[in-house]
Amino acid sequence: MKCFITGVAGFVGSNLADRLLKDGHDVVGYDNFTTGSLKNLEVARTYPNFRCAKADILDLRKLELVMTGCDFVFHLAANADVRHGLKHPARDLEQNTIGTFNVLEAMRTNEIKKIAFSSTGSVYGKNPFIPTTEKEGFPIQNSLYGASKVAGEALIQAYCEGYGFQSWIFRFVSLLGKRYSHGFVVDFYNKLKTNPKRLDVLGDGTVKKSYLSIGDCIGGIILGVEKGKDPVNVFNLGANEFMSVKECAETVTSYLRLSPDFCYGEEKFGWIGDAPFIFLDCEKIRKLGFRPTSTIAESIEDTLDYLINQDCENSL
Amino acid sequence: MKCFITGVAGFVGSNLADRLLKDGHDVVGYDNFTTGSLKNLEVARTYPNFRCAKADILDLRKLELVMTGCDFVFHLAANADVRHGLKHPARDLEQNTIGTFNVLEAMRTNEIKKIAFSSTGSVYGKNPFIPTTEKEGFPIQNSLYGASKVAGEALIQAYCEGYGFQSWIFRFVSLLGKRYSHGFVVDFYNKLKTNPKRLDVLGDGTVKKSYLSIGDCIGGIILGVEKGKDPVNVFNLGANEFMSVKECAETVTSYLRLSPDFCYGEEKFGWIGDAPFIFLDCEKIRKLGFRPTSTIAESIEDTLDYLINQDCENSL
Repeated sequence: MKCFITGVAGFVGSNLADRLLKDGHDVVGYDNFTTGSLKNLEVARTYPNFRCAKADILDLRKLELVMTGCDFVFHLAANADVRHGLKHPARDLEQNTIGTFNVLEAMRTNEIKKIAFSSTGSVYGKNPFIPTTEKEGFPIQNSLYGASKVAGEALIQAYCEGYGFQSWIFRFVSLLGKRYSHGFVVDFYNKLKTNPKRLDVLGDGTVKKSYLSIGDCIGGIILGVEKGKDPVNVFNLGANEFMSVKECAETVTSYLRLSPDFCYGEEKFGWIGDAPFIFLDCEKIRKLGFRPTSTIAESIEDTLDYLINQDCENSL
Repeated sequence: MKCFITGVAGFVGSNLADRLLKDGHDVVGYDNFTTGSLKNLEVARTYPNFRCAKADILDLRKLELVMTGCDFVFHLAANADVRHGLKHPARDLEQNTIGTFNVLEAMRTNEIKKIAFSSTGSVYGKNPFIPTTEKEGFPIQNSLYGASKVAGEALIQAYCEGYGFQSWIFRFVSLLGKRYSHGFVVDFYNKLKTNPKRLDVLGDGTVKKSYLSIGDCIGGIILGVEKGKDPVNVFNLGANEFMSVKECAETVTSYLRLSPDFCYGEEKFGWIGDAPFIFLDCEKIRKLGFRPTSTIAESIEDTLDYLINQDCENSL
C-alpha cells in the first residue's frame, strides 16, 4: 500500500512512518517542519520507499500534487498546542479545521477514499461520564483545539456520507515515548534541568489524565484500520489506567533520582480549557484485540530515557 | 439593547429584526444580500432605530467596524443550502464555520460577549434516538451543512470557556412561514405552478420531518435568551409533531385545491445527506414556557399564503 502521511515529521507521524515502512508499505510524507523535525525521520529516511515533501497542508495545490498515486491517507498534521490556543485563536481553525478540509479535497481530486485521522479525547470536553465511551452525550467544547478537532471529525464524516469515503477516527489520550515533544513530562524534565531542587507544577496537581505509549498508539491505529469495517469508524485509544499530574511529577522525579520541592498552583487547572479528568473507555478497540503493552509509569520512563538521550546527542 | 443581526435580510433574520424592533430594541443588521433580500426588510426599515450594512461576514474588518457599540449578537448568516452542499464543498466551511469564527473575533475586538446562534437539528446526523434530546450521543455528521454547524457550535462553546462569552445555541427543525425561501413547500408550490397536474417529489415521500412556524421560532429564541442562564445554553426548537414528505405534499395540494398525480422517487432520500427522520425533543425549552401556537398544517398554509401573495405582488 502507498501511504500518505501528513505531519510525518512529528511525534505520531514519524513513529507511524517507521512502522508502515517496516511492514513493507511505501510512504509519502508531508510536513511543513514548523514543529516536526528532520531528526524524527532519521529511521524513515533509510528506506528507499520513503519520500517526503516539505510543504504546508494549507497549500492545497501542493497537497494535491504530492498525494498523487497514494492509496491511503493518514492525516496527522495539526496544531497540537492546546495550552496556548487562546493566544492565537485562528491557528486551530486554520491548521486543524481548514487543513483537514484541504486534505479531504486533495483526496477527492486524487480519488483516494480512505483516511485515518488523529483526533483527541479533548473532544469530549468536560464530560461527566468517565471512563468516556465513543457514544457519550453530545459534547460541549472547552478548548479551541477540541473545537477544531470536532470540526475535522465532522468534515471527514460528511465526506464519507457524501463522497463515499471510509474513515478511521482515533481519539487519543495524551501520548508518551520516543520523539515526544510537549506536555507535562517534557515540561517537568526541562524545569528540573534548570533547577533540580524545585519543580513548579501547572495547576494544583489533581488533574487526572490517561496516557498511552506511542508504540501502543501506533499499534492501535494499525489494528483499527485493519479491523474497522464501517464507513465511519471512531475509536478511543488510551491505556486502561490514569494518573494524576502529581503522581506524574513524582514518577518523573523518582526516575531522575531527584527530590525537589514540589510547588503546585492554586487553581485546579494548569490552563483554561484543560480537562479535569480525561480517561477513555477503550472497550471498542479492545474488542478488536487492542492490548497496551506499557504501563503509564513505563511510558514516562521511556520518555525520560528519550529526552536524556536527546540531550546527550545534542551535547556531543 | 442594541442588537447585531448577521443574515438580517434572510428568512429568520428579518423576522427576528421585526420582533426586536417591535419590542423596542435597536437593531444593526448585516447581510451580503446574496440570498437575503431588501424586500424582507420592508417592515424593519420603517423603524428609525434600524440600520443595515451590506457586507460579508468573511470581511472581518468590516464586521468589526459595523458591530461597534452593540450589546448582543444574533448570528444567523449561513449558507443554508443543505441539499446542494456536495456540489460546492467549500461553501459551508467558508460561510458557516469560518464566518462564525469571524463573528466571534469581531465580538472579541468589540468586547461583546453574548451570542445567539442558529444551529440545526441536522447536527444529530442519523441519530436513531427519536425524539432526539440535546444530550443525545456524540453524533456522526452526514452533511457538510451539519458538519459546518457543529463546527460553529464548537467554536462558540470554546469562546465561552476561553474568553468568558455566554451563548444560546438553537437547533432548529425546518422552519415555515412568511419570507420562507427554500425547502419542500416552495419546491412543491413552484412545480405545481408550472404543472398543476403532476407533482414530482424528491425521494419516496417517507422521510419525516418536524417543522416550526417562524413566529414560534422567533418566540423560542427570545424566550431561550431571556431564560437560559448557563455559559452555554443549547436548545432544540421544533413543534411537538412531525409530518412525512407525502403528507406535506398532500397538505399543499389540498390547500391549493389541486389533485395532481404524485410521482415519488425510488430512493428513500431526496438527496445525499438528508436525514430519514428529524424530530427533536423540545422538553428543555418547553420547561421554560415554550408552546408553539401553530400546527404544522397551519404553518404550511401560512407559507402558501405568503408565496401566493408574493406572486400577486410580483405580477402587479
